[in-house]
Amino acid sequence: MSSPGPEINMKDVAGRAGVAISTVSRALSGAPGVSTATRTRIEAAAAELGYVISPAASNLAGGATKRVAIVVPHLARWICAAMVESLEVRLRAAGFEILIYQVEDADARHRFFAQLPARRKVDAVVVVCLPVSDAERARLDLMGVQVLAAGGQMVDYPFVCIDDFEAARQAVDHLVLLGHRRIAMIDAYDEEIVDWPRESIRHDGYRQALAARSIEVDDQLTVRSGWGGEAAAAAMAALLSLPEPPTAVFAHSDEVALGAVRTIRRAGLRVPEDLSVIGIDDHPFAALTDLTTIEQPVALIATQAAELLLDLLGGVAARTQVKVPTRLVPRATTARPRDALV
Amino acid sequence: MSSPGPEINMKDVAGRAGVAISTVSRALSGAPGVSTATRTRIEAAAAELGYVISPAASNLAGGATKRVAIVVPHLARWICAAMVESLEVRLRAAGFEILIYQVEDADARHRFFAQLPARRKVDAVVVVCLPVSDAERARLDLMGVQVLAAGGQMVDYPFVCIDDFEAARQAVDHLVLLGHRRIAMIDAYDEEIVDWPRESIRHDGYRQALAARSIEVDDQLTVRSGWGGEAAAAAMAALLSLPEPPTAVFAHSDEVALGAVRTIRRAGLRVPEDLSVIGIDDHPFAALTDLTTIEQPVALIATQAAELLLDLLGGVAARTQVKVPTRLVPRATTARPRDALV
Repeated sequence: MSSPGPEINMKDVAGRAGVAISTVSRALSGAPGVSTATRTRIEAAAAELGYVISPAASNLAGGATKRVAIVVPHLARWICAAMVESLEVRLRAAGFEILIYQVEDADARHRFFAQLPARRKVDAVVVVCLPVSDAERARLDLMGVQVLAAGGQMVDYPFVCIDDFEAARQAVDHLVLLGHRRIAMIDAYDEEIVDWPRESIRHDGYRQALAARSIEVDDQLTVRSGWGGEAAAAAMAALLSLPEPPTAVFAHSDEVALGAVRTIRRAGLRVPEDLSVIGIDDHPFAALTDLTTIEQPVALIATQAAELLLDLLGGVAARTQVKVPTRLVPRATTARPRDALV
Repeated sequence: MSSPGPEINMKDVAGRAGVAISTVSRALSGAPGVSTATRTRIEAAAAELGYVISPAASNLAGGATKRVAIVVPHLARWICAAMVESLEVRLRAAGFEILIYQVEDADARHRFFAQLPARRKVDAVVVVCLPVSDAERARLDLMGVQVLAAGGQMVDYPFVCIDDFEAARQAVDHLVLLGHRRIAMIDAYDEEIVDWPRESIRHDGYRQALAARSIEVDDQLTVRSGWGGEAAAAAMAALLSLPEPPTAVFAHSDEVALGAVRTIRRAGLRVPEDLSVIGIDDHPFAALTDLTTIEQPVALIATQAAELLLDLLGGVAARTQVKVPTRLVPRATTARPRDALV
């Protein structure tokens, strides 16, 4: 393997671009105060010369590591991965590198938070789709870096997420307005997270939406399930085993909803003629399977979270707790209940 | 925010665990030659004392950065994210941190490879689900670090992936053995990658599998599409517009297959009664939608890739080009053609 050519430095780039060395430093380290035109000219000059800013030089210019840690439970789960995808694009554009930490089970989670205070080599930690316990919060505080939640809310930290209460309300109201009264919920939670709140915000939204329409809440119609489709399929089988099964199901995600749909069809029943199903997310596969859902605008959440983080690191953030609106995406898995058609 | 307690060092951990300091160093830096029982005892002692190995100390012990860069085209695409998930778990267990670089379009890709030689702060680069051009290969070589491909093969580098030729052969043979002769292919490629090979290995596998069964290849039956379901849905519409449409479709991924299924159903035709569809991957949603597919064992590929990388970094790798077997997963979207039933 060959080695790179003679050392190119920031002065060479400044000369080529016709700007001051300090401007090159600011532009290449992603600092504010450089116009897009100037930044583009400097980047072109740096690319022509084969110059890349070194982390050490960047630290001297900005006093920061230019690295962000993203903590996420499961990358293979679409909502997590899509969130990280958009975060990475925006933060990289601002000159940051991304370190990924998965906390896929209780053990990995324990290790991550136990080792946290020593990880003083990032400027910020973004917690994606993960509720954080009080003990873990204390560990995060020990780091002394900026913390932000994307796709979930944490009382003590800035966050960008959907309004889970409102998303559940929208899903239940859609079913109620179609004429359903016996509305079940597949209440998903992460089996690996010990501290997952027993009563989720979506659960609360479901109960209150029913109460607001004067529909009695039947606890038999709430079944808990992991976030995976297979667990949801089993939960749906439990609902179909009730003496009086539901006519509609509100599932906490699209994957959970599709697990339910499979069980319903395998039982010889039709969706939506015999049973309506609605999810949350608007996963790309929801459009392919004609699933009615409540859209969680993931790319928007992640991009706003990245912008908020950059504002916070720059000391200029105005709002630090942002809820992004959701909306109904009506497709082919919800309809009036059979009785209503008689 | 409070600061951490008095400095704990490796000697304290060694004393608590009852082992030599060098053993603590090896265990906490993920080096080989420490039994699982000893490693567990040392990790427990370190956790009790709140000791975390510093990157500097780790470097002294292992002479390396203990960081791996993962380069990936799109994290929100399941196959990429699932690959990164399993890579991260295994490499983290060996004491590595993971830096993520997405090259989601031609621009990001150009920037990444242009800046590569300066990124001498990782021990290795893992290229996930991404064909690499000759020019990019030259940039990778300039880095002087270990390079490995996971989920794709590169002539000059170690790789772990499926046998794409064999996967296509399995898919086509399944359709042929059911009695299909007019078998279409939705040939997926990444629109953002300029150098994507015009004739993919899967394309070649399809043609040769047909030839081996003495079935003439009709070029009209091959349509190109992006990897997304919506693009695939449009490609399927083109196939249905032919004077003599196919009776079966081989799609290059499950997402592509589900896009095709939606178009077929919207056209008022039934799957599999009127048209059979088979994908590749065994995406979790394939099981939920009863899609017949060829399983690409992603977790196995990623884990074997991580093991191979650790072996290479340790200088002990035997085989460096590994193909993982695929297999047919028969479900409900393939059946005999209608004519065969007459």
